[in-house]
Amino acid sequence: MNFMQIAIEEAKAAAALDEVPVGAVVVWNGEVIAKAHNRVEEFYDPTAHAEMLAIQQACEKLGAPRIPECEIYVTLEPCPMCCAAISFARIKRLYYGASDSKSGGIHSFSHSSCHHKPEVYDGINASESAELLKSFFLAKR
Amino acid sequence: MNFMQIAIEEAKAAAALDEVPVGAVVVWNGEVIAKAHNRVEEFYDPTAHAEMLAIQQACEKLGAPRIPECEIYVTLEPCPMCCAAISFARIKRLYYGASDSKSGGIHSFSHSSCHHKPEVYDGINASESAELLKSFFLAKR
Repeated sequence: MNFMQIAIEEAKAAAALDEVPVGAVVVWNGEVIAKAHNRVEEFYDPTAHAEMLAIQQACEKLGAPRIPECEIYVTLEPCPMCCAAISFARIKRLYYGASDSKSGGIHSFSHSSCHHKPEVYDGINASESAELLKSFFLAKR
Repeated sequence: MNFMQIAIEEAKAAAALDEVPVGAVVVWNGEVIAKAHNRVEEFYDPTAHAEMLAIQQACEKLGAPRIPECEIYVTLEPCPMCCAAISFARIKRLYYGASDSKSGGIHSFSHSSCHHKPEVYDGINASESAELLKSFFLAKR
């Protein structure tokens, strides 16, 4: 299974728990060292986005608050909070699926307040991730 | 002791632990329900900013990922990650001390990707907070 597919499985797990279906995976040396999905409602924590939880896990595993050799795979374009966290963690590469024109944060990497910009690759398995989100929000109406 | 002074005490506690001296306090109904300082190095967690930890504590205490009746006091202008977290938590008012022209995130509240902007009050006890940061970084050189 490729890394984005693992992130998509995480997103599906989120949907099953009635959380916004977004998943994230952190890879180090070609190995998954952290994976997570949104847990905002479960944890009563507005910061518990998939990316944040995966970064925290990865940093704990590697014993450092900066993990410059890591890559992150996220099913949806990260929000500005998660983009800042990716930047603070010095993550090397960001791969994401669907774009988020309403709440996405990729623009923030270009702001002068951002001091580390990862390489960014978009559109990875985008339709599957977008479909998950669409079904989730349709069911909510 | 006023709320910003409590945040400044938190910042001092951070400095004593060799963490960037920033402190934050969350207030609900005129009472401090959470206070925290930076713990990035201690926790190996790039997201462990004072504001994030204080928001997480406050949300846990109130049992909700959104705390629209709360105010947050921070000794330094929050970074874009923390501004996004303040926005996601629907915090009503943000009071901060020193401005941060290099890494501050107040600008992000005006971006179209931000869907809740708190009332913002700046410059509260700013010189004391700025002095703490200045001494900290001077000692680091």
